[in-house]
Amino acid sequence: MTDLLSAQELEARLNAIGEERYHIHHPFHRLLHGGALTKGQVQAWALNRYYYQASIPRKDATLVARLPTPELRREWRRRLVDHDGDGVAPGGIERWLALTDGLGLDRDYVVSLEGLLPGTRYAVDAYVAFVRDRSLLEAVASSLTEMFSPNIISQRVAGMMKNYDFVSAETLAYFTPRLTQAPVDVAFALDYVKRTPRTRAEQDQVLGALRFKCDLLWAQLDALHHAYVSPGLPPPGAFRP
Amino acid sequence: MTDLLSAQELEARLNAIGEERYHIHHPFHRLLHGGALTKGQVQAWALNRYYYQASIPRKDATLVARLPTPELRREWRRRLVDHDGDGVAPGGIERWLALTDGLGLDRDYVVSLEGLLPGTRYAVDAYVAFVRDRSLLEAVASSLTEMFSPNIISQRVAGMMKNYDFVSAETLAYFTPRLTQAPVDVAFALDYVKRTPRTRAEQDQVLGALRFKCDLLWAQLDALHHAYVSPGLPPPGAFRP
Repeated sequence: MTDLLSAQELEARLNAIGEERYHIHHPFHRLLHGGALTKGQVQAWALNRYYYQASIPRKDATLVARLPTPELRREWRRRLVDHDGDGVAPGGIERWLALTDGLGLDRDYVVSLEGLLPGTRYAVDAYVAFVRDRSLLEAVASSLTEMFSPNIISQRVAGMMKNYDFVSAETLAYFTPRLTQAPVDVAFALDYVKRTPRTRAEQDQVLGALRFKCDLLWAQLDALHHAYVSPGLPPPGAFRP
Repeated sequence: MTDLLSAQELEARLNAIGEERYHIHHPFHRLLHGGALTKGQVQAWALNRYYYQASIPRKDATLVARLPTPELRREWRRRLVDHDGDGVAPGGIERWLALTDGLGLDRDYVVSLEGLLPGTRYAVDAYVAFVRDRSLLEAVASSLTEMFSPNIISQRVAGMMKNYDFVSAETLAYFTPRLTQAPVDVAFALDYVKRTPRTRAEQDQVLGALRFKCDLLWAQLDALHHAYVSPGLPPPGAFRP
């Protein structure tokens, strides 16, 4: 009952969490890639998701600050490069702003976070706090939703390209590098969570961290769904299409 | 009295702090570069200073996690590369370990921190905490001892090469890249602390942060001097030459 899981069994359980809880199964995602949303609803999604994108390097630097060796820090530093860019090639945040530009949102308004849903803010901030406050093992494990992201990205890009005349390959350019970056990140993080735990309790922490992360991605779509789909009641001050 | 200082005047006051408080004026530094120390005393210096070197990327990643824009984070990320390396070229920590190797210290013992002086630990940890807890302006300003480091490095390298037969250009290779890295870092940080403050109180915080940093470098040499020079009483558990 409390025996250490084999690496294979641990990975199987991580995958099972994704199958149950990853936000690819959220109704809002289905509406998004299925072409059922208005341009205003897609704008609301891109605007809110910007805060998640912009917070990822803060989250990753928080982890870099806690990692004990140059080797581990270099590994995680690559994520900073992916999201902040190198001053020449645009990083993920810049590419996300190309998406909000392409959707006709004012860039200053997006970056100001003025129209953000409070629910988005709480969920994203909970992620940064988790990575700051929990064990290193849990902090690393919380990145493992990237195991599932190539799948959702493929659905999203194909579906959005097919169903919306207001998006183009150019606007969706954010996603292309992620298809190759995420698997590199996952290879390291998955190996780390397989070889680090010495007890079943630690393995359970790994599983718990992935559940936590799935929940916070899900909660962001809940907030969008409530505000912009059904019942469609954006809170005072939030973006209105 | 409380008028905003000109950028020039602020820089002059920063320089004055260095002239008064930078650890180039500490007796231990004079003994070190003057050839007055035994090999055991130089080992104690390198062993203790290792903890400072190894903590710098934690300090810098702590700041990266707090910086608000990709541009600022990229600027500060370069310091992570300088100290942790890129997996090909060795970073500052690796080069410091070449120094402790060259001085005949066991690398595992150095990295274990077992022989560290508590005074070194407290001073270094105070630096990381300062960068985590103070304003961004103060955190950036606390890096400004690099304004003075090319000077101390030149003295140290020339003096040690001339005076000790147990050091070589190879052992001291840590310092060479710092002569070019530090001025690049300073250029940014100095510009930042000149253009950010809107009040004299903020400018005073900048000056205070540099004083704080000078003090903690000084305190590290105090601890070394007390333990290994005069009276020469290493505390229980600390490295004994």
